[in-house]
Amino acid sequence: MPRYLLTVAYDGTNFHGWQRQTDLTGPEPRPLRTVQAVLEEAIRTVVAERVDVVGASRTDAGVHAVGQVVAFSCAAVFEPGRLARAVNGRLPDDLRVRRAREVPEGFSPISDAIVKAYRYRIAHGRDDRWPPPLFARTTTSWTPYRLDAVRMNEAARRLIGAHDFASFTRKNHGRESTVRTIHDCMVAAPRPARVLLDVCGDGFLHNMVRIIAGTLVEIGRGRRGAEEIEAVLAARDRAAAGPTFPPQGLCLMWVRYDLPPPPARTPPP
Amino acid sequence: MPRYLLTVAYDGTNFHGWQRQTDLTGPEPRPLRTVQAVLEEAIRTVVAERVDVVGASRTDAGVHAVGQVVAFSCAAVFEPGRLARAVNGRLPDDLRVRRAREVPEGFSPISDAIVKAYRYRIAHGRDDRWPPPLFARTTTSWTPYRLDAVRMNEAARRLIGAHDFASFTRKNHGRESTVRTIHDCMVAAPRPARVLLDVCGDGFLHNMVRIIAGTLVEIGRGRRGAEEIEAVLAARDRAAAGPTFPPQGLCLMWVRYDLPPPPARTPPP
Repeated sequence: MPRYLLTVAYDGTNFHGWQRQTDLTGPEPRPLRTVQAVLEEAIRTVVAERVDVVGASRTDAGVHAVGQVVAFSCAAVFEPGRLARAVNGRLPDDLRVRRAREVPEGFSPISDAIVKAYRYRIAHGRDDRWPPPLFARTTTSWTPYRLDAVRMNEAARRLIGAHDFASFTRKNHGRESTVRTIHDCMVAAPRPARVLLDVCGDGFLHNMVRIIAGTLVEIGRGRRGAEEIEAVLAARDRAAAGPTFPPQGLCLMWVRYDLPPPPARTPPP
Repeated sequence: MPRYLLTVAYDGTNFHGWQRQTDLTGPEPRPLRTVQAVLEEAIRTVVAERVDVVGASRTDAGVHAVGQVVAFSCAAVFEPGRLARAVNGRLPDDLRVRRAREVPEGFSPISDAIVKAYRYRIAHGRDDRWPPPLFARTTTSWTPYRLDAVRMNEAARRLIGAHDFASFTRKNHGRESTVRTIHDCMVAAPRPARVLLDVCGDGFLHNMVRIIAGTLVEIGRGRRGAEEIEAVLAARDRAAAGPTFPPQGLCLMWVRYDLPPPPARTPPP
């Protein structure tokens, strides 16, 4: 059975996160609007069968993606470019397929991922005339405190390497190992009142990027020192880290796999 | 009675335009969510009386503002900075007061306006991998045709000056005169697949900027020549101009008045 990989982008604002969910609060159980559910429905109408779409990252509600990677198998055979266009024709305007390709039958977007990269956009400080961002309010997280990007970057560098990140995930995470390797973690200040946090690694625990951001913000506003990162890591205790930062500014940028190059594109008949 | 001017910004996506409106389609008439209605309600709770808020520009549904100018009178006396903060505390996150000042009692944001400036953000062309803008879809209008910004700018320059803009407004506009003066009108291409239209003038008829944009887009995609602008103006007929372009990319940038400088700011007691 052919298996397809889609690279998808979405504005997470109006989704209840990636994962299929049922709302049990009403008189009748009903499916919530999640990226996975909307994608599966669009693909189902294109390939004419029910599909199970697996995503590389289970992004939270409000979190965006420009390079989420998903895969599914179906009986029908498609030229990948045509498949992407057909699915795009059935998607709402906040979800988009960017690329498609065929992959080996056993491909898993989760266990085959080699590196994942996230970016956090943070606005900081209170400006009397125009406080938090208006047009960027769904793609930028805001804190009223002035942040020192240099201190934050100092702290960020200390997260690079293989560490036990048990302090940086919620309790009851249910994972066997909380050791992950961060390849790069840096904070930059591209313009006044904004910082960018870029982090990539071999994998991330639940809420890990949001707790890293919350901890770096506490350092950036001067409540903690950059050198405290080592103690937070050593504690292996959620309470040692900072708060879980709001989701709006977080975006899944890309996921890297070791895949053979796709076959040369054949022109559509 | 003191009169206050507020400079306000809003994301027009979830507003039914500027002007107060009643929805008569349901079983009971109910007010629609408009910028004017939401502002009046917030100000009412701050100044403890019903106010009539007049805006310089009656922006359409979906149109944004970073420099809309509004005014109202009330019995209470406020330090303008405090008034702005108090009103901001009662506004939703898509509407913001940027500045406040006191103005003479007879001030009118409409008839005292000297220059108004609008900007249109347009994305163009179809990119197989990622067609219209995703995150900018509420602040950028999109056309699938490739646009030639140089031709559009040539046409834009021909609109500068005092002209009868009857072709660039809807029929039954109900205005005595359709003569307006455009001080500047230019099209730039800051990056690939994007054009910016900047236009300022002494006043604009209903839908005028959107019809200018629609006409320039027809010229940019090659359906008409830049030199046809003169004939469109001379026709004084809505049918001679291009379509009304979608509202998402339009933003009211600023409005200029001839006002005395505000008094030196007194520190709050």
